[in-house]
Amino acid sequence: MHFADALTEATKKKSPVCVGLDPKVDALPEGIKKDASGVLTFNKGIIDAVKDTACCVKPQLAYYELLGWEGMKVFFETCEYAKKQGLLVIADGKRNDIGSTCEAYADAYLGKDSTIDALTVNPYLGSDGVKPFMERCKKNDKGIFILVKTSNASSGELQDLPVGDEVVHEQLAQLVESWATELLGKSNFSSIGAVVGATYPEEMKYLRTLMPHVPFLIPGYGAQGGTAADVKHGFIPDGTGAIVNASRSIINASKGKDWKEAAAKAASEMAEEIKLALK
Amino acid sequence: MHFADALTEATKKKSPVCVGLDPKVDALPEGIKKDASGVLTFNKGIIDAVKDTACCVKPQLAYYELLGWEGMKVFFETCEYAKKQGLLVIADGKRNDIGSTCEAYADAYLGKDSTIDALTVNPYLGSDGVKPFMERCKKNDKGIFILVKTSNASSGELQDLPVGDEVVHEQLAQLVESWATELLGKSNFSSIGAVVGATYPEEMKYLRTLMPHVPFLIPGYGAQGGTAADVKHGFIPDGTGAIVNASRSIINASKGKDWKEAAAKAASEMAEEIKLALK
Repeated sequence: MHFADALTEATKKKSPVCVGLDPKVDALPEGIKKDASGVLTFNKGIIDAVKDTACCVKPQLAYYELLGWEGMKVFFETCEYAKKQGLLVIADGKRNDIGSTCEAYADAYLGKDSTIDALTVNPYLGSDGVKPFMERCKKNDKGIFILVKTSNASSGELQDLPVGDEVVHEQLAQLVESWATELLGKSNFSSIGAVVGATYPEEMKYLRTLMPHVPFLIPGYGAQGGTAADVKHGFIPDGTGAIVNASRSIINASKGKDWKEAAAKAASEMAEEIKLALK
Repeated sequence: MHFADALTEATKKKSPVCVGLDPKVDALPEGIKKDASGVLTFNKGIIDAVKDTACCVKPQLAYYELLGWEGMKVFFETCEYAKKQGLLVIADGKRNDIGSTCEAYADAYLGKDSTIDALTVNPYLGSDGVKPFMERCKKNDKGIFILVKTSNASSGELQDLPVGDEVVHEQLAQLVESWATELLGKSNFSSIGAVVGATYPEEMKYLRTLMPHVPFLIPGYGAQGGTAADVKHGFIPDGTGAIVNASRSIINASKGKDWKEAAAKAASEMAEEIKLALK
């Protein structure tokens, strides 16, 4: 199924909640081994806890790379497990490179047999660094989310530089929309998505108008300060068109023995908050 | 030793040639197994062949990630082997993320015990995505190369957007120079470097003036079309301040049994070409 259609369906069926699988070894709950094998045990527990609430999970590659090749093994095993549990899987790698190298990244994460559904992509290299991913999206029913306006405090240093009457990320948004219209699904959304931070609600409102066919991946909810009221402008009126990621506030909801229950509860509460804000 | 000082010393002792270790399984020479183990054999052969000519090697992470966790194992083994052979090692990952995640990437590649000397970094997230790397540079004598003007055809789509009387990558260059001056070595160069493509020689000339303390990593030589005449403006008059990467033109110089000799010859010829251009 076309990635945006699968995402829309999962959003309707469950919720727009995306759970960030960003496990820090030191923050693992009591009783779990503080190594790569412990991370896999932990991830499986979180996936089991949130699979009926969340539409997708988003493992952040940095935390797996930090554990060396053993961590990368756990990364792929995590993706496989999540997929089997009926979740969409977004690899958060913010990958980017020139065309030939970009092909390698595209095949690494968005190949035909990959259990990963989508990858986050950094746009600083322009279309050369995006097109190889788009080809895999088309051929293999995969998706990408291109960084447009990120959630961090210093995102404006480059992204908000003034270009004529606009700013850099607005110019980029128009480029992303133009790429997106090449790959529309039945949902009228594209497999080309955008990352738009919850911490910049005004920008999000305007970006929704600039990119009507682009699904938003909204990070920055919870621990980073974004609220349900902040993210609602990323959605279209029927409650689709965006997914909202939270990581620490869900996966680290408890460090005690009740960590799975606490994660399930935090994900449900977040889904409820967003649902209310969208009414 | 401070990274820029080590790089300057290696450049003077050997050459500014950086060999890109971007092994494609299908392009491995005859007689070498077409899998991750073959890649390691190949990389070791190339390292042996170029270690007296090149100042550093630059494995491109995409080609290792493409081979899954087995590829990542080979990546780290390659870095370790290169380091033992007296080469500086630059991991080409173009990593980037918000602060907390950036810390994980920084520890993954620029930790105290890492055999990697430097990492390439994408600046689209601003200083939040750079500072954690800078801390490791300072604490662990590591380096980074920040993408400023990349070698690919579409690099201008974002990097050349007009901002007042300048363009995006020129504004960024000034930011990079300001970060760089915080981490100067005895060579008067910083451990904060910049990626400036060989394919844009005019821009390189101007960027050298905007970033006097920033060592340049210049990709795009050889297969991508950059020549010795194109890269010379990245250097300062004493022949330091820049390293020039070539990958395919060296590692794929021959697919026959003479692949090591061919790589050694291609690296020597490149070093000679640059030496002549700098005279």
